[in-house]
Amino acid sequence: MFTKIDFEQVKARISPFVHETSIVSSQSLNELTGNSLFIKPECLQKTGSFKIRGAASKVTSLQGQNIKGLVTASSGNHGQAVAYMAKALSIKSIIVIPNNAPEAKIKAIKAYGAEIVMVGPKSNERLEMAKDISQEMEYIYIPPYDDYEVIKGQGTIGLELINWGHSIDKVFVPIGGGGLLSGIASCIKAINPKIKVIGVEPQGSCCMYTSIKAGERKEISPDTIADGLRTVIPGEITFPIVQKKVDDIILVEEGEIKEAMKLVLERMKLVIEPSGAVSVAAMLKEKGEGKNLVAVVSGGNLDIMKIAEIIAK
Amino acid sequence: MFTKIDFEQVKARISPFVHETSIVSSQSLNELTGNSLFIKPECLQKTGSFKIRGAASKVTSLQGQNIKGLVTASSGNHGQAVAYMAKALSIKSIIVIPNNAPEAKIKAIKAYGAEIVMVGPKSNERLEMAKDISQEMEYIYIPPYDDYEVIKGQGTIGLELINWGHSIDKVFVPIGGGGLLSGIASCIKAINPKIKVIGVEPQGSCCMYTSIKAGERKEISPDTIADGLRTVIPGEITFPIVQKKVDDIILVEEGEIKEAMKLVLERMKLVIEPSGAVSVAAMLKEKGEGKNLVAVVSGGNLDIMKIAEIIAK
Repeated sequence: MFTKIDFEQVKARISPFVHETSIVSSQSLNELTGNSLFIKPECLQKTGSFKIRGAASKVTSLQGQNIKGLVTASSGNHGQAVAYMAKALSIKSIIVIPNNAPEAKIKAIKAYGAEIVMVGPKSNERLEMAKDISQEMEYIYIPPYDDYEVIKGQGTIGLELINWGHSIDKVFVPIGGGGLLSGIASCIKAINPKIKVIGVEPQGSCCMYTSIKAGERKEISPDTIADGLRTVIPGEITFPIVQKKVDDIILVEEGEIKEAMKLVLERMKLVIEPSGAVSVAAMLKEKGEGKNLVAVVSGGNLDIMKIAEIIAK
Repeated sequence: MFTKIDFEQVKARISPFVHETSIVSSQSLNELTGNSLFIKPECLQKTGSFKIRGAASKVTSLQGQNIKGLVTASSGNHGQAVAYMAKALSIKSIIVIPNNAPEAKIKAIKAYGAEIVMVGPKSNERLEMAKDISQEMEYIYIPPYDDYEVIKGQGTIGLELINWGHSIDKVFVPIGGGGLLSGIASCIKAINPKIKVIGVEPQGSCCMYTSIKAGERKEISPDTIADGLRTVIPGEITFPIVQKKVDDIILVEEGEIKEAMKLVLERMKLVIEPSGAVSVAAMLKEKGEGKNLVAVVSGGNLDIMKIAEIIAK
């Protein structure tokens, strides 16, 4: 599989497009829990989520090719990341989104200068449309997670954690399609296999947990506020990597996700989205044993009114 | 005055106690304003504000002395910073606060293990009590701003901005007693005097602006939501430094402060306190000319319910 050098090469390649997010902590949360808690805040990443790492990795792997444009199917963070990359490279992009996507997300993607194509609400319709556009217009299709270059891009977070130099016992990572988790797990296990890598899913949307238990990819019907984690089935490429490299998968409840968002807002001064908060929720459930725990917070993109709602509860 | 080496020495001395906060930006805010906007987020600093820099600088300047304890008068960020430093050094601390201080602030200071002494609501009562305690108990008094070591500590932010390597046209800095502003201005002007350093005050609490206009220190009656900036008169030491080193002072309205907090929460995923938002408010008022502007955000300590209130407006 991947080696340390693979991730170092990708990190160097994507560095013009990506921040190295600095790790934050909170003394008061440490005292509350009896562990040393750290957050890798990809909410402070360009475009507000880690997705830019994978998109940049994919695009920069095509060096020498004449890239006409980029296309993908995503109304969320991945769509913003692809639009941003296209803009950074002064090429065109088309983002395929469902016709029921919220106005705020459409605005965010348009703000990066992408063209938007709307199709029906089903995810296979979007995917087909994106692939059609890719063929007809010779635009590069950027997959959200099931791609080795994308996975390596997300894995650069693992490299930054290792290079941080601080001792780490466990890393908690949200699971959507499994790109972030398989990237980070591949990187960390290639360098320091003693560090435990834990995937986290909402109880209402746990296709990876279900599939790992079953030993094969299983479909589920997701129901969670964590909109970035509403995946129906794990990726073909990501699933076997998670099987091999990840130590455990933990499930968290909806109330725990909201409580984690609130605590991080209050104690760490960071806005994190529900999908990013699942890793924090899992970290907060750990027994207090003076361990060094890191939660990778995947992003911070959510409607500002939602923040007010969550605080008021 | 101070030289680059002074700040480098202080930065090395305080580095065990202080984060180097990484600078954040927002593409969407840049497009909104026509400038490149950056934030130096001291809300992500230990204790949630820049005050730890000054406190750490003062304490570490006393090397070789046997320090029994620390004492100061402050119910806000400075109180937390002094309590934190005492805890980090395993010594005692006493924080003198007014008997009308909000419960949340008292809790935060107590959480760092400090002893609290309450006196009447007047600031001179607190100061006298702190100085009495300092003498009687041989605790070191840590001034909030009017002290060369404290000023140099806050000035390390200027050094981090210079070392960032990115071109900077203007830096915006909130003014309370003037410690943060005089520190940053001294540092930047010692290294790269071309960078403009701008102080920012709320219209309802502008003792520095009023004093600079008058050519001497003037008293005012502060009235602003920016609770950290409710200063009655500029410092004796900070005032002449601001006179000499600072390019301009800008005033912002209360509505502009709230709007800046909201924008930073929404676009930059950061919780900032009203006192920290004044610099962002001033930066947002700049004409769009493709300039590189940095707002130093002094802190992020505010009641979580206040955040909900500000969003809902």
